Amino acid sequence: MRTVRHRFFVQDAGAPGTTVALSADESAHATRVLRLRPGAVIGVFDGGGRELVGVVTAVGGRVDVRIDAEIAAVPEPAVAVTLAHAVLKGDKMDGVVRDAVMLGAAAIRPIVTRRSETTLAALERGHRLERWRRVALASAKQCGRAVVPEVLETQAFTPDASWFDALALPAPRLVLAEPDARAVRPTPAVDVPRPGQGRATLVVGPEGGWAPDEIEALEASCVAVTLGPRTLRADAAAVVALAALFAIWRVEGAC
Amino acid sequence: MRTVRHRFFVQDAGAPGTTVALSADESAHATRVLRLRPGAVIGVFDGGGRELVGVVTAVGGRVDVRIDAEIAAVPEPAVAVTLAHAVLKGDKMDGVVRDAVMLGAAAIRPIVTRRSETTLAALERGHRLERWRRVALASAKQCGRAVVPEVLETQAFTPDASWFDALALPAPRLVLAEPDARAVRPTPAVDVPRPGQGRATLVVGPEGGWAPDEIEALEASCVAVTLGPRTLRADAAAVVALAALFAIWRVEGAC
Repeated sequence: MRTVRHRFFVQDAGAPGTTVALSADESAHATRVLRLRPGAVIGVFDGGGRELVGVVTAVGGRVDVRIDAEIAAVPEPAVAVTLAHAVLKGDKMDGVVRDAVMLGAAAIRPIVTRRSETTLAALERGHRLERWRRVALASAKQCGRAVVPEVLETQAFTPDASWFDALALPAPRLVLAEPDARAVRPTPAVDVPRPGQGRATLVVGPEGGWAPDEIEALEASCVAVTLGPRTLRADAAAVVALAALFAIWRVEGAC
Repeated sequence: MRTVRHRFFVQDAGAPGTTVALSADESAHATRVLRLRPGAVIGVFDGGGRELVGVVTAVGGRVDVRIDAEIAAVPEPAVAVTLAHAVLKGDKMDGVVRDAVMLGAAAIRPIVTRRSETTLAALERGHRLERWRRVALASAKQCGRAVVPEVLETQAFTPDASWFDALALPAPRLVLAEPDARAVRPTPAVDVPRPGQGRATLVVGPEGGWAPDEIEALEASCVAVTLGPRTLRADAAAVVALAALFAIWRVEGAC
């Protein structure tokens, strides 16, 4: 149980006894927003799974923190799920990244599918990857995770079974199927495959769903799961699916 | 499977062969936004579980629809869950209502708790109940439900076990506990009680959590469940909990 109120990200957090400096952003947040003073007890996490407690020792310019102790980090899910999610319209992907981190996804792979209404070039011009990584960090801070899941580079989805292997997306690979999807034969969520090696991939499409040749490829490489007969909003599908999958795996003792 | 693209709410939808008029709002949406013309095939649902197909016969003023057939409605969950949810700040409750309807909640009971940052009077002045009912209807249209869950009047939560009985909130009653809740002994989600009569209540608190005397009352009347060790955002807690509960009940064959 954390007993500190505020947590800060320090990539190279060091061992107890050492002093580390917060980044410029984190320093500004600590002093200008939270108005922390020397002596304030804070939490520090390194994004790789370490959770520490320290004391602010200096606030001029960068904030210095003396690391006092390493504490138990919030445990990660027993199944490391990579979320391969089609980029949605507008800034909706921010919410998908934020919620996936909160639910416990291990990594997030944005993908551009036939019906994604954006391009890799547009995403790069918009510096979206950097933005999603900031969102992931902020969400990890808020939800108490000591691990910041990596937001991987956006890739074009190609309807080719080897695409999954090329990107090292771990099996079992589950694709979330819309209730009225015709080509993909949905597996009731009850029969979702167990993660054999403690890993899995969840694939979620864009607002407009999958193109016919994409569905063919997904049928060859993935297990389609549905989550009840109601149509899920595209920006809510991942959070619902992750919550359901982790719950099912917990009940089945796989998680 | 629905084969129509647009669905409209008609409270008194009538039998096949009869002609019904869409409401002023629905008529405006049909003609000004969707630009439907006589001959357009549309879906009609009555909010009580009936799903019909009809044809637009007139678009001057109110839109007239000749009901042609009753079709299979999207099935409702086998467990009727009433969501008793503390009113959140700003317009966040709109999203809670929208998502709860999409997930399949049977009814939504907004509550004002000790740490809710609003009052019954402020909610009434703001006509929030009417707004939430419009949100519920819009969400039912979008997700394909033929049932519009009732958004009940907001009630003050009193830390008294009889409060649940007075509001007829069905057992088992589950309260979502924060991972660091101390007073409430959380039950792992694996052990959530089965809904005996096909009904259950899920209670979710506000941003600031529960006051000590509220926790005491909840301990007496509810089973506390947690959903993993990460802190859920207040406006995401209900959607995560409903997704997990329905998944668990499905796996256990109770749903």
